[in-house]
Amino acid sequence: MSESLSWLTQPCLPIDAMAADAARRRQDHLTKPRGSLGRLEELAIRLAGLQGTPNPTSDPVQILLFAADHGVAAEGVSAFPQAVTVQMVRNIAAGGAAIAVLAQALDARLEILDVGMATDPGPIPGVRPERIGPGTANLARAPAMTDAQLAAAMNTGRAAAERALDGGARLLICGEMGIGNTTPATALTCALLDQPAEVIVGPGTGLSPEGVAHKADIITRALALHASEGSTPTELLARLGGFEIAAMVGALITAAQRGLPILVDGFIVSAAALVAARLQPELRHWLLFSHQSAEPGHQQIIAALEGDPLLDLGMRLGEGSGAAVAVPLLRLACALHQQMATFAEAGVSEADGALD
Amino acid sequence: MSESLSWLTQPCLPIDAMAADAARRRQDHLTKPRGSLGRLEELAIRLAGLQGTPNPTSDPVQILLFAADHGVAAEGVSAFPQAVTVQMVRNIAAGGAAIAVLAQALDARLEILDVGMATDPGPIPGVRPERIGPGTANLARAPAMTDAQLAAAMNTGRAAAERALDGGARLLICGEMGIGNTTPATALTCALLDQPAEVIVGPGTGLSPEGVAHKADIITRALALHASEGSTPTELLARLGGFEIAAMVGALITAAQRGLPILVDGFIVSAAALVAARLQPELRHWLLFSHQSAEPGHQQIIAALEGDPLLDLGMRLGEGSGAAVAVPLLRLACALHQQMATFAEAGVSEADGALD
Repeated sequence: MSESLSWLTQPCLPIDAMAADAARRRQDHLTKPRGSLGRLEELAIRLAGLQGTPNPTSDPVQILLFAADHGVAAEGVSAFPQAVTVQMVRNIAAGGAAIAVLAQALDARLEILDVGMATDPGPIPGVRPERIGPGTANLARAPAMTDAQLAAAMNTGRAAAERALDGGARLLICGEMGIGNTTPATALTCALLDQPAEVIVGPGTGLSPEGVAHKADIITRALALHASEGSTPTELLARLGGFEIAAMVGALITAAQRGLPILVDGFIVSAAALVAARLQPELRHWLLFSHQSAEPGHQQIIAALEGDPLLDLGMRLGEGSGAAVAVPLLRLACALHQQMATFAEAGVSEADGALD
Repeated sequence: MSESLSWLTQPCLPIDAMAADAARRRQDHLTKPRGSLGRLEELAIRLAGLQGTPNPTSDPVQILLFAADHGVAAEGVSAFPQAVTVQMVRNIAAGGAAIAVLAQALDARLEILDVGMATDPGPIPGVRPERIGPGTANLARAPAMTDAQLAAAMNTGRAAAERALDGGARLLICGEMGIGNTTPATALTCALLDQPAEVIVGPGTGLSPEGVAHKADIITRALALHASEGSTPTELLARLGGFEIAAMVGALITAAQRGLPILVDGFIVSAAALVAARLQPELRHWLLFSHQSAEPGHQQIIAALEGDPLLDLGMRLGEGSGAAVAVPLLRLACALHQQMATFAEAGVSEADGALD
């Protein structure tokens, strides 16, 4: 592993059990039947433990949107042409894409990073050029990236998470844009969960059944090509991943090391989280799964990471959009936790013996 | 039926299929894979059909909170003493209860109505005194209310919905507070769905298993007592219902007649919706189910009304809180629908043949 990645082995911040216990005690005295807010109570208690305070908050929310291209797109694994990556980055920066509309509606911070689209688009207002290369190599025929590119991508993600922390963010969302990137995400998931491509593969942005079968063939070939070349998480990430996926792995690990809770989006981000959790098993505790994606492989990753998604709305857009849609649940959980009166404060009688 | 309830038979407003179609066409041209926003697309399209515009909105949101007491509380069917109803109404009005915190966090309008708590609390700032009586009679031993009380309660709900409409509300949430009110809601559900008490009954605010069994016995007795006394929805509502439930039936029917979409809360409100839908089958189309409550009978009502709840967070608080928590999903669905760029506007290439 590159020397510049020595930070990867720094431990994740431990959960503050005392803060979580204090939050749990407060929940039990708020004017409602105990447990009647269901998962909203759990969310407030979990955030308390992660943030190390009995009064957690989800704001400010920082969304980091990593965009990159994939050599494997040449194999015809996406319903959209590769040019859409840069077109969509322009659309995000201009406010017309889903994640941009959501960020504005939620008053969340949105940082957009070009970590290696196929062609350099030149300056785009609101987009940070942090280009690792002109897209990855075609992982069906060669390693997707060099070790130096892997290190650069992960360090780019780490620096983005550090900027978020320095800016006071209390919740991190990673999002991605990259035509073809369900293919590297699926390949990584297959390799890390030891599953055949047919079990994990899905339609992505809208492949036909024939397209899905073709994509599975490409992934099967890639897995065979790289099978003898090392199986550590970073080796797999370099051979099968993408620049945006590697950057997200760096951002996620940094967030967990520095105490920033993570609201996980759908399949691609979850694949990055799976890589990150293989590097740092304790990172799992920092992951709040926002939604169950319609992409079939997502369930397998969530099960492996023992997640329990908050939403199941049939979304499969990426960009961090599913995580953004779940932000209000965290906000309302925190508002209820902080602002509800206790039984004593409100002069409300507690339950008869039945509850205690 | 009382002459003052002649409005009950006015038809619900029909869905505007042209507005829904226009909204669907717009969704298909927004910069995302078709269908990739899942239920958020459906929500925008449904709201468009209900509001009769291709550009729907969920705001302003009006929450109507109906509070009342229940004679059947004397049978020991709740984990909380009856005095809690008025204590909680004071807590809601003072801003310390869950629905008050949620209304403030969401910038939603909240109207609180005393439609018949057991004792008249005198003036409470922020609470409308619309008292039908000092709580209902004990439905395990007598009809819960007279025909005149039923008509008064339903007309009170209708007037509240009309105020909401006159104030420009675009989305209605009904909520309730009434110690013991899962018992009338369960009895009504049993009668309307022809199910025994054991199938529908649940712990409400937190009964022990013994408490649930006792509650089922009380409900079984009540169903037997009233079985031969008429089975129209209004007859059942008078004999087995509550003032707040009858008021909600009036509000829901009025909303559907006047074109105001309804975001349905949990078990109690759904029982009111079931009564309303038996009076007006087309009302079903106006119901957006916000969440799956932890109360077991809720699933049966949702199935009967062919609902598909947006959230499943294990909530069982009432007050309209589950519906309030779902409001941001509608807001974000509308924001995405209105503000996302189309492929043409953004200069983004559409999908290859796979999608079309």
